[in-house]
Amino acid sequence: MLQGVIENNANYQPGLSIDCVIFGFHHNQLKVLLLKTPFESKWSLPGGFVPIDEDIDTAAVTVLNVRTGMEGIFLRQFATFGKVKRNDKHFNDTVLDYLKIPQQEVKWFTQRFITIGYYALVDFLKAVPQKGNHQEIIEWIDHKEMPELILDHKEILDKALETLRAELNLMPIGYNLLPEKFTIPELQKLYETILDRKLDRRNFLRKITNIGILNKLDEKKSNVAHKAPNLYTFDKEKYQEVLKNGLNQGW
Amino acid sequence: MLQGVIENNANYQPGLSIDCVIFGFHHNQLKVLLLKTPFESKWSLPGGFVPIDEDIDTAAVTVLNVRTGMEGIFLRQFATFGKVKRNDKHFNDTVLDYLKIPQQEVKWFTQRFITIGYYALVDFLKAVPQKGNHQEIIEWIDHKEMPELILDHKEILDKALETLRAELNLMPIGYNLLPEKFTIPELQKLYETILDRKLDRRNFLRKITNIGILNKLDEKKSNVAHKAPNLYTFDKEKYQEVLKNGLNQGW
Repeated sequence: MLQGVIENNANYQPGLSIDCVIFGFHHNQLKVLLLKTPFESKWSLPGGFVPIDEDIDTAAVTVLNVRTGMEGIFLRQFATFGKVKRNDKHFNDTVLDYLKIPQQEVKWFTQRFITIGYYALVDFLKAVPQKGNHQEIIEWIDHKEMPELILDHKEILDKALETLRAELNLMPIGYNLLPEKFTIPELQKLYETILDRKLDRRNFLRKITNIGILNKLDEKKSNVAHKAPNLYTFDKEKYQEVLKNGLNQGW
Repeated sequence: MLQGVIENNANYQPGLSIDCVIFGFHHNQLKVLLLKTPFESKWSLPGGFVPIDEDIDTAAVTVLNVRTGMEGIFLRQFATFGKVKRNDKHFNDTVLDYLKIPQQEVKWFTQRFITIGYYALVDFLKAVPQKGNHQEIIEWIDHKEMPELILDHKEILDKALETLRAELNLMPIGYNLLPEKFTIPELQKLYETILDRKLDRRNFLRKITNIGILNKLDEKKSNVAHKAPNLYTFDKEKYQEVLKNGLNQGW
């Protein structure tokens, strides 16, 4: 992808990039997909540029698709970051050298960039993280154990998490993060992990049931010694409806 | 402002603009500040460009300040709009002629623009709408009686209103939209106008009181025949605290 930009940056929107915060849920951890290039000690969010003939949302879908191998991912724009000096020291000689950017193209890469942040929720087990090249490292990292990030990527990640937390009050969640069949305790654990606090069991059950997006199955979770909990699935139609209209539980 | 951009567009971020949805509340109407130039039948949101040495948020503050004469306005970025063809037919010959854009600068103005949307809540009575030049019209228009808007400004306005409605569940509102002293029915009317539906009086009173941001005054509303309602103010410190931490009433 980068090669195309270097060879013909006139085909890309100047001074504009996309950064994606890709969340996955696994072993009761909220994980984030991060990249590292060999010439840097810091990690970065997966990102890309915007082809002049593509909508910004399409460019974001491409980044996700390229990095996870998945399509039809839940993806939401959450904020645009445009402090004056956010990237002014990023493309130093080491980076330019590693990226093999020819002298005449350096100006394009070192210009001021504004970046549009998207966050995605993906099924951890279905995603296949893809490197950009064999020297790169790509990994799921627990959001509580974040390494140092380049540029303002920490700020972008924090804002994505803040948005995700706020949106728990506005929309249902879980469809993209849990296996198809799940128990209420598993769903509650997802909420607790995102919110980073314990929730009352009965309150949670009442609220989540009231939304009307769960189908109780005639099955119990197996491999559980006794008092096996019921399994549920999301009612996809109702889930989409609530996603569209909002939870509207406030006023 | 535009003159500066025409004369030296190298000082501005290429292909990037700011558009502001400025809301005011008056006579139980939610109004939006709109502009019209003499050569067009459609109205537009106030907007501007981003100086290369200014943060995007600062550029948005400038637009607000220039258009309302106000400072310290509540202002929030809500979305960035970047469909490929959003402005490709906007700068036609009539517009270029009216704006007196020299031939050699036309390319800069007709390039693809991505625009960052901000919404603001202002005190209708304190704002002094400012024209860009004497031919321009600037007016507060009821959001229920919107005229046709240029480009994707209708989409931007709709998204701003959708965001404002959603954020009623996440943060307090009213500080920038109501007079300093107000009654609970007046505050309820503000919520009803934004949400475009009736709310239950007792429920509203309970919920708004629970947030803990209101100070009841030792005063009643004057000019009311009998059963004069109590006057309230916002407890600014608690209001700011809740604004920062969120209502957190969901889970």
